[in-house]
Amino acid sequence: MKFYDIGQPFETEAIVNFEDIIQVDDINTLLDKTQFNMEIDEKVVLTYKLTSEDQIFGLGENMRGINKRGGIYESFCTDDPSHQPDRKALYGAHNFFVVDRKEEKVGCFIDFPTKVEFDFGFTHKDELKITIEGKDVRVYMTTASTVTSIVSGFLKAIGPSFMPPKWAFGFQQSRWSYPNADSIKDIAEKFKASDIPCDTIYLDIDYMKDFKNFTVDEGRFPNFKSFVSEMKADGFRLIPIIDAGCKIEDDYFIYEEGVQNRYYCEDANNKPFVGAVWPGKVHFPDFINPETRKWFGDHYSILVDQGIEGFWNDMNEPAIFYSEKRLKEAIEFAGDKKDKNLGIYDFFDLKDHFMGLSNSDEDYKTFNHRLDGKTYNHFDLHNLYGYNMTRAAGEAFERNYPEKRMLLFSRASYIGMHRYGGIWTGDNHAWWEHLILNIKMMPSLNMCGFLYSGADIGGFGGHASGELLTRWSQFAVYTPLFRNHACMGTRHQEPFSFEPETTGVLRDTVRYRYAMMNHVYSEFMMARENNTMLFRPLTFDYEDTHVSQIEDQLMYGSHMMLAPIYTPNAKGRYVYLPEDMMLWRIRSNESYDLENYSFGHHYINAETHEWLTFIKKNHLVLLNEVKNNVEDITLEELHVIGFIDDKGSYTLYTDDGISREPSPTYLTIEATYENGILKLSHSGEVGCKNIHFDIMTMDQKRHKGVYHV
Amino acid sequence: MKFYDIGQPFETEAIVNFEDIIQVDDINTLLDKTQFNMEIDEKVVLTYKLTSEDQIFGLGENMRGINKRGGIYESFCTDDPSHQPDRKALYGAHNFFVVDRKEEKVGCFIDFPTKVEFDFGFTHKDELKITIEGKDVRVYMTTASTVTSIVSGFLKAIGPSFMPPKWAFGFQQSRWSYPNADSIKDIAEKFKASDIPCDTIYLDIDYMKDFKNFTVDEGRFPNFKSFVSEMKADGFRLIPIIDAGCKIEDDYFIYEEGVQNRYYCEDANNKPFVGAVWPGKVHFPDFINPETRKWFGDHYSILVDQGIEGFWNDMNEPAIFYSEKRLKEAIEFAGDKKDKNLGIYDFFDLKDHFMGLSNSDEDYKTFNHRLDGKTYNHFDLHNLYGYNMTRAAGEAFERNYPEKRMLLFSRASYIGMHRYGGIWTGDNHAWWEHLILNIKMMPSLNMCGFLYSGADIGGFGGHASGELLTRWSQFAVYTPLFRNHACMGTRHQEPFSFEPETTGVLRDTVRYRYAMMNHVYSEFMMARENNTMLFRPLTFDYEDTHVSQIEDQLMYGSHMMLAPIYTPNAKGRYVYLPEDMMLWRIRSNESYDLENYSFGHHYINAETHEWLTFIKKNHLVLLNEVKNNVEDITLEELHVIGFIDDKGSYTLYTDDGISREPSPTYLTIEATYENGILKLSHSGEVGCKNIHFDIMTMDQKRHKGVYHV
Repeated sequence: MKFYDIGQPFETEAIVNFEDIIQVDDINTLLDKTQFNMEIDEKVVLTYKLTSEDQIFGLGENMRGINKRGGIYESFCTDDPSHQPDRKALYGAHNFFVVDRKEEKVGCFIDFPTKVEFDFGFTHKDELKITIEGKDVRVYMTTASTVTSIVSGFLKAIGPSFMPPKWAFGFQQSRWSYPNADSIKDIAEKFKASDIPCDTIYLDIDYMKDFKNFTVDEGRFPNFKSFVSEMKADGFRLIPIIDAGCKIEDDYFIYEEGVQNRYYCEDANNKPFVGAVWPGKVHFPDFINPETRKWFGDHYSILVDQGIEGFWNDMNEPAIFYSEKRLKEAIEFAGDKKDKNLGIYDFFDLKDHFMGLSNSDEDYKTFNHRLDGKTYNHFDLHNLYGYNMTRAAGEAFERNYPEKRMLLFSRASYIGMHRYGGIWTGDNHAWWEHLILNIKMMPSLNMCGFLYSGADIGGFGGHASGELLTRWSQFAVYTPLFRNHACMGTRHQEPFSFEPETTGVLRDTVRYRYAMMNHVYSEFMMARENNTMLFRPLTFDYEDTHVSQIEDQLMYGSHMMLAPIYTPNAKGRYVYLPEDMMLWRIRSNESYDLENYSFGHHYINAETHEWLTFIKKNHLVLLNEVKNNVEDITLEELHVIGFIDDKGSYTLYTDDGISREPSPTYLTIEATYENGILKLSHSGEVGCKNIHFDIMTMDQKRHKGVYHV
Repeated sequence: MKFYDIGQPFETEAIVNFEDIIQVDDINTLLDKTQFNMEIDEKVVLTYKLTSEDQIFGLGENMRGINKRGGIYESFCTDDPSHQPDRKALYGAHNFFVVDRKEEKVGCFIDFPTKVEFDFGFTHKDELKITIEGKDVRVYMTTASTVTSIVSGFLKAIGPSFMPPKWAFGFQQSRWSYPNADSIKDIAEKFKASDIPCDTIYLDIDYMKDFKNFTVDEGRFPNFKSFVSEMKADGFRLIPIIDAGCKIEDDYFIYEEGVQNRYYCEDANNKPFVGAVWPGKVHFPDFINPETRKWFGDHYSILVDQGIEGFWNDMNEPAIFYSEKRLKEAIEFAGDKKDKNLGIYDFFDLKDHFMGLSNSDEDYKTFNHRLDGKTYNHFDLHNLYGYNMTRAAGEAFERNYPEKRMLLFSRASYIGMHRYGGIWTGDNHAWWEHLILNIKMMPSLNMCGFLYSGADIGGFGGHASGELLTRWSQFAVYTPLFRNHACMGTRHQEPFSFEPETTGVLRDTVRYRYAMMNHVYSEFMMARENNTMLFRPLTFDYEDTHVSQIEDQLMYGSHMMLAPIYTPNAKGRYVYLPEDMMLWRIRSNESYDLENYSFGHHYINAETHEWLTFIKKNHLVLLNEVKNNVEDITLEELHVIGFIDDKGSYTLYTDDGISREPSPTYLTIEATYENGILKLSHSGEVGCKNIHFDIMTMDQKRHKGVYHV
């Protein structure tokens, strides 16, 4: 990979490993072989002439398909809860993409902390055009013969993902908000009563006293510390939210300390900027500044000291509901209209004054960051804000808890943030369209380093039907972050909140995840280690020309292909197999069908309680016994499901699940098939006693038995 | 069909033909055999226990799939331009549906003019629940062994569709707004220069003087009458919009006459209700009252006298941007907040005061209709408003222009309105999701009588890509209303507004429609005459269990199956054939492939410039020579494409295209295949000289030639 600096780019620290990267000092060297053109004026504009076959992958958390061609996108962290099809930006800003041209693949990373527009053949079908809203930017380019080699090189350059504790791969239940300790106990009780595994319950904004970070509302949560401990003993870790904005309130320590030490973003008069979010009027910590990061990050210990082991950072685009100044203007504007006969365009203008109050560029331009004696306008560094908030926490955890991993993920992000925490895909909706969006987004997130990620299962906004939650869960059993979360005012969507039949199906789905716990964890850790992606478009793995058309199947880890169902009332779906595979039609970890399918197109039935996963030829998948908590799972009794022609193996990575520098152990299970006889063997040692196997061979024979380790 | 009156239902005149309908005097007789339960209290609630296989079709213009199961819907005409997946109501209120249960199909029509909620297995997957917000309602029920017999009976009961002039089947170009005569001339010129057929150009609200109905802005359109005539001579009819609200302005005749004669809806003090729409403050004509209808309807002649032959009625839900009263309240509410430190929920409250101003139930409840000496609250008759506006125009046209048909369609509607005009599907978006919504909606609209309908091709809101417009056009060539329309501020999306390659593809698409003109017209007129649907779900035609899963293919007329492409970057799609059919892969009326496909699942390629239509076995499709205006098309040279096993025929309906009581003539073309010899014959006479044929037989032989009539 090469990079070229235009002007004086801000050091984002997105890329940290420069081992395989060289800086070049002229544009032509940068663009060599890429077929890109670059024009530098008040903005920097890159263009590329697309052929009809070119595809474009990447951009992390964004709308539309796996193939991003034909759309227009924006890089600008945005809190907009209505992800309609024409939204150009979501919560993350992930400017890495690869053009997949038959002859030559081109990788490009625009390392630039504010607005970039990516017109990928939308305005003109054969023109890719990137408009960078500034002229201080670092551009990375590379070419290669495969997309995956570009992606691996990029993943190496940005460094490995943060390492979540293993328990963070369990099922997680959230809602805005379980209002108090009793309601959380009630939820926990219901999980136990309905025998559905669950490892965490979330605390949304109402756990805080008046929405003040690092406080707990004693009315709602008396004796918080003992409550946390009691819940943990019961099998549920509590995960509190931390918001970016800090309440302006005399005697509130975060307010006082921040103002005193100038830790907050300031306006042109060096006064802390005033915006409003959940707590009402707030200041925003200047996370760009390392001193602020240290100060803020260390405060997480207030909650850690009470037993907390994980956090989610929210509202850190930063979302601003309104600024003092512009709300005042809007109210005055309205006052002026009193008793006047408004023309219709005057009325729209008035309405827009209120509708346009939130998250406005105008506000972002009125406050500043301070770093190394220099002042930077927030707008110009906007995309780094959530990243550096999460970095504040991540750095603090590393510093203060070097012995153990903490769970941490964020709403806003920039490339590089994955080293400190994961992301969830923000405030989606209970729309079938957002289930398929989740499916399509996973590989793009992985390309940009975000391995620990997932969507709010069932959708955050709006009411979920049991069927939507079921289909969503059947996909999410494979996403590292496996969390059901919903907005205030929506129907309850915990897995036990539906009719018994649906709850039963959801139970089986969650239990399947727990059976796959070691497999999912192992695949995650190996992808992390090897700079590979957990979720991949089929076209990253197969040469076959048809795979470029597949937007609704994904390769998963080393062994599997997923073909999720994402439409209502479906009793099956079309699946394309790029090679012979074995269908694993799953109803639960214990009830499933195995069927051989050959290369090509198939329509495959799947009732609502079933989902379709495929195992590649000569591959094995490993399941463990189900427990209701991750930490209760052992490796004593393992189950292997596989599809063998002649020989296949599975190597399970395992570690203590909590150390920051774990000492992994490995178990390799091998199956060989020769002269009609299936044999298992193993190497390594993880405390396994028996391996129950259920293996299909290419000759349609099914081999079941127990292998004693 | 049976009906039962609960309380004293308002006479909606949805159903006009009671030939096969009987009134019953107890609920049990109504519900007999239907398995429905009914409870009557302050509301009327119908419930039905669904089996896992039951499907539900109908509800006309609404969201989600062809099979409405699993969703929740509302009947309440609503101007909400953002048709997100969880919208429950659009512009029309179409309360007819059929439950498709294997043993017994149940048809139900809730004839009720305000809110009804249809929970079709959303809240509880196996419960259908209809909540009628009142207790004066007429409920129609019927059972039968086929869905189509129920639908045909219902179509007979509501009477045949209004008859559009044949030229209204041509391509129609619209935009909000072509601002003046010159811009319209320019558009017309571009159609001619790019050789793309087009029959009409639309006048959106800006053609009016200050948005006043039945006026023309002389500054924008000097000498309107001669302009209309000049444009018509050039091949373009102009279609002006008429809005529901009428400007309050002294000396404006519509205002003066309406107030003087109490033609407007009145508030509780018998003062005309004041809302605001495009003209600013307006009154709303009381279209429920026949005298108002006559008065308003007769004014369309002001424009007809200037050469106008078609209209679109808009904003007739009615949309209300704000009411005088509630805007005042919101402004005062804002004023009270001045210089106060707002809590965040106070802020949301303030914002909601402005965001909730439009189309509020509160406003709908503050004005009344007067009929036969009685007063009716608008809210209680809300869904009849747009219907009766369009009825006002339709009745006036029938009265004033008995000799010829006028084009008329509406945004808001209720069942029964189809007798007076068509509908377009309202303010959709340039979203791929709205193309598939259009596809899924067509059969539901047809079920409710709306034969002359279509969506804004390319989407009204937002920016369309060339590819979206291309794929949308490839479907819309089959919809009777074939109109490209877009919102102010969006990218121009006339077919010539893209790069030459895309414009070329769009030209071929529109030209295909003109080649299919007589076929489409004939199929429309026969569906109208025979109480059948032009677009049908496959499951209406085939017994086969898999067809119930098909949500993206449609049967079209008597001969064809459509398999439109509705996803970006697609180079093909899956198609299910319920029987052997011939693929007609269309690039233009002259360039296409014919291929035999057998029963079952197929993946079929189609590049962006191609689309997939299938011809049934022993069926023919008829094309005419292309002209750039419908009225220039002759039947002299016809082209037949067909798929023949032994014998198939096509009967073309034709008439003068303009008389209200046409004298149809028919041409029947028959193809027989025996002993390897294909023979054509004909009966009837429509001035045809030659029939060019291109017919595939089951033995894969292709027969081309000319048959001289």
